[in-house]
Amino acid sequence: MFKTAELGRKVAKAEYRDLAPALRQELLEVQQELKQNNRFPVIILFAGVDGAGKSEMVNLMNEWMDPRWLVTRAYGEPSDEEQERPEFWRFWRDLPPRGRIGLFLSAWYHRPLIDRVYQRIDEITFFRRLERILTMGDMLMDDGALIIKFWMHLSRDEQRKRLKNLEKDPLTRWRVHKQDWDHWKLYDRFIETAEHIIRHTSTGRSTWNIVEGKDSYYRALTVGTIIRDAIRHHLSGHTLKEQWQNDLAARGEELQRNPVPTISTVAATIGQSSTHLTVLSQLDMSLSQGKKDYNKALKTYQSKLNLLQRQAHEQGVSTILVFEGPDAAGKGGAIRRITAALDARHYLVRPIAAPTDEERQHHYLWRFWRLLSRAGRVTIFDRSWYGRVLVERVEGFASEEEWRRAYGEINDFEDHLLEHGIVLAKFWLHITKDEQLARFQDREQTPYKRWKLTDEDWRNRERWEDYELAVNDMLAYTNTRRSPWTLVEGNDKRHARIKILKTVCEALETRLASAQP
Amino acid sequence: MFKTAELGRKVAKAEYRDLAPALRQELLEVQQELKQNNRFPVIILFAGVDGAGKSEMVNLMNEWMDPRWLVTRAYGEPSDEEQERPEFWRFWRDLPPRGRIGLFLSAWYHRPLIDRVYQRIDEITFFRRLERILTMGDMLMDDGALIIKFWMHLSRDEQRKRLKNLEKDPLTRWRVHKQDWDHWKLYDRFIETAEHIIRHTSTGRSTWNIVEGKDSYYRALTVGTIIRDAIRHHLSGHTLKEQWQNDLAARGEELQRNPVPTISTVAATIGQSSTHLTVLSQLDMSLSQGKKDYNKALKTYQSKLNLLQRQAHEQGVSTILVFEGPDAAGKGGAIRRITAALDARHYLVRPIAAPTDEERQHHYLWRFWRLLSRAGRVTIFDRSWYGRVLVERVEGFASEEEWRRAYGEINDFEDHLLEHGIVLAKFWLHITKDEQLARFQDREQTPYKRWKLTDEDWRNRERWEDYELAVNDMLAYTNTRRSPWTLVEGNDKRHARIKILKTVCEALETRLASAQP
Repeated sequence: MFKTAELGRKVAKAEYRDLAPALRQELLEVQQELKQNNRFPVIILFAGVDGAGKSEMVNLMNEWMDPRWLVTRAYGEPSDEEQERPEFWRFWRDLPPRGRIGLFLSAWYHRPLIDRVYQRIDEITFFRRLERILTMGDMLMDDGALIIKFWMHLSRDEQRKRLKNLEKDPLTRWRVHKQDWDHWKLYDRFIETAEHIIRHTSTGRSTWNIVEGKDSYYRALTVGTIIRDAIRHHLSGHTLKEQWQNDLAARGEELQRNPVPTISTVAATIGQSSTHLTVLSQLDMSLSQGKKDYNKALKTYQSKLNLLQRQAHEQGVSTILVFEGPDAAGKGGAIRRITAALDARHYLVRPIAAPTDEERQHHYLWRFWRLLSRAGRVTIFDRSWYGRVLVERVEGFASEEEWRRAYGEINDFEDHLLEHGIVLAKFWLHITKDEQLARFQDREQTPYKRWKLTDEDWRNRERWEDYELAVNDMLAYTNTRRSPWTLVEGNDKRHARIKILKTVCEALETRLASAQP
Repeated sequence: MFKTAELGRKVAKAEYRDLAPALRQELLEVQQELKQNNRFPVIILFAGVDGAGKSEMVNLMNEWMDPRWLVTRAYGEPSDEEQERPEFWRFWRDLPPRGRIGLFLSAWYHRPLIDRVYQRIDEITFFRRLERILTMGDMLMDDGALIIKFWMHLSRDEQRKRLKNLEKDPLTRWRVHKQDWDHWKLYDRFIETAEHIIRHTSTGRSTWNIVEGKDSYYRALTVGTIIRDAIRHHLSGHTLKEQWQNDLAARGEELQRNPVPTISTVAATIGQSSTHLTVLSQLDMSLSQGKKDYNKALKTYQSKLNLLQRQAHEQGVSTILVFEGPDAAGKGGAIRRITAALDARHYLVRPIAAPTDEERQHHYLWRFWRLLSRAGRVTIFDRSWYGRVLVERVEGFASEEEWRRAYGEINDFEDHLLEHGIVLAKFWLHITKDEQLARFQDREQTPYKRWKLTDEDWRNRERWEDYELAVNDMLAYTNTRRSPWTLVEGNDKRHARIKILKTVCEALETRLASAQP
């Protein structure tokens, strides 16, 4: 989940100087519009790793916007006055009225997170507190409020560096407390709990934006852009209700004209520096495997897989393998190397194409629920439910609202599978754009491969960059600890196939070694 | 919560014969429209007390509507096939496609309820299962589905009678299992758990309809009417999206023309028998107290209250008293009898009128959050947050969507208070319509009372019946075990004042006797 915020994205100083003034101007403008419109409040929450720039962002927004119309609040330990009232009293008191923006630091998400990290509260209390937060958010949004949530992120190493640097400088030394180092020592638990919070409280209406906090220019432009666009989008809905009350179509168009960017799309728009980085661009695509080693490894893992799957079958443990990746990435070949090791009665390959008429009459997850097998089987999905946030997003088959809420829906669906004890492994089989071209050309020139190449493949290729951003967002929300993605460097087919076989074997081994989940 | 479904509402046979044919016809018509429209599925869930008519309702709907377009499912213990898949697999498999209606008996709500009643699952597992159900519902509704939920209710005594009757008749004896009597013995725990489920899963988008199951004519007409109107309402939104795509206003009007009835409003429309019963009509309004006894009791309870409140103040326990009731019910007088017993530094009376301009810029609960006092104080609300579901509903100041979701919001707000350890007592101070007239006339004729009577009082009086229905619905959703209402028979002021003082004393005693909550 946080890998997408550890890419080292940055914006050069010159570029920042180029872009920041216009953004400031636009933020002031939307703030004015919001005030004029006077129909809903904007609530912006900053949470995240210490040192990732939470307070810097709050200060910057106060500098960039008109502070007379901002409500800024940071929460420490509750005062006597506050302790004598229900916990949320102080938050309610500080909520901005319609037409204004509230910037909240360490607000309602903070105490559950910290209390859980320090194990001061048990699981059910933690869970209940999150529920309460969700209820509060729903209540405010039902009333029209726009809620924007930022998780400012730093990797464990970056956080250490950042704290050290602050300590070195006499001017900033005061900012580092013993408590910060205590937190740092618990980094892993902190991040695990944070992932839980982000997953549980990212709804279609209000998703967390996970922002890489390392580079101050990058994070400033990202946060500013998202705030600007989210308010614009929300205003489109509200303003138009009045202006073009009798033209729904125009309103829809206006809303579409002001889409809310995701972290990946905003990175692609701000600057030329290294913001085009995605998780995929970090892969070492030169990885390869020699033929001899490959043949040996193939034999090893295939017999291992055969053995493991027979055990799994006896124990009634089902396996689901998901394959996604660009056209010609080698999904079919990899799948065949797996099925070759399996008993034909115990597996099924499910190629997923556009939904049928019957399927279209249902919720998009319906067809995947139907395909769940009996106990002890292997089901291999050649493309899957992730189509919702990949092809359907990129091609516009799903509306923005639909694909945005799909991340949560998919996580929930996979929870059902995992809690039933199913082994789930998800593979993104990647190739570079050049490698794809080479494979397409090879298919064109080889008569018996020609049928594999369609016009659609060429069309998809034209949207390569859009797919790459969609994949990055997909990984940000669905690459969770419970259900991780395996990214496979696929330029070398041999390397890819062995990595996949090995991962499947490991997943089965882990599951079989554990008791019933 | 269930009191409103133990009123003994019934419909006479002749009346039923009069009304049923038209309702059947209309149900067939909406079913046709739904099929034509083909944009969303309808999911109808039946749950409740055994013997309250769940399966009868499913059978009746199959008789009344065209069964070719119905999907009917009842769930028992999962089969082998089902056990080998995640729990929800069987429900997903059975979901109706767009354009159709699904009738579900003992579906996804059933197992968590039973498992919790028999203490087979702990609190957190129960909680998680409810969350999962909510997530599933949200997912389907986001996709357009209409979900209608019925809780068929019987009191403990009625259930016993019903089981006995079934047993007596050789033709129905087979329907009563040992398990039914086991359930019956756990009636109280069953109802407590049911209340938890209904509270937790009644959202603005999909509320539970609690139907009194005693009379078969009444329940049939109620269930049929709600299904008809809920589908019509949902269709208004969908059909119009196409027909009058460029006329939002018309769409709003059309939606309003097809409101979804509540249990109280539907009872008022079906028949003349005893369906006009409300919780208020059950009160014994003749209760009264002699003057001498009154003076004695007043002294007793006032000194008791004084003592208790001093203790509460020392311990930092706050008290919130809520007074609602018709104009001239005697709220002011009752409040003065309380404050007379308190230290003036420790209480505040908060009269609640229309919101100010500043308050209107916020969520409607904001002003009540602000008024929460420091520890150890008594705050008396003369009218309160319940205005949302009373005056604002009746006068149309809140939209149907707004007041419907307010029940849940109010329950949640009161949870915050209770969990903080605040003593909360809510009084509905009731008078009859005749008594109100007498008091109005007295006010008109007594010079020093004349200021109390306004034109608004007369206007409100004209809507007496609407208010009575709104109160009945309010009690259905907010009269919970944790936060019960006290209904006060107010025709005799002395009786009313003593009952109120006594209740406040008892609430304080209970709270002070318990450890920190």
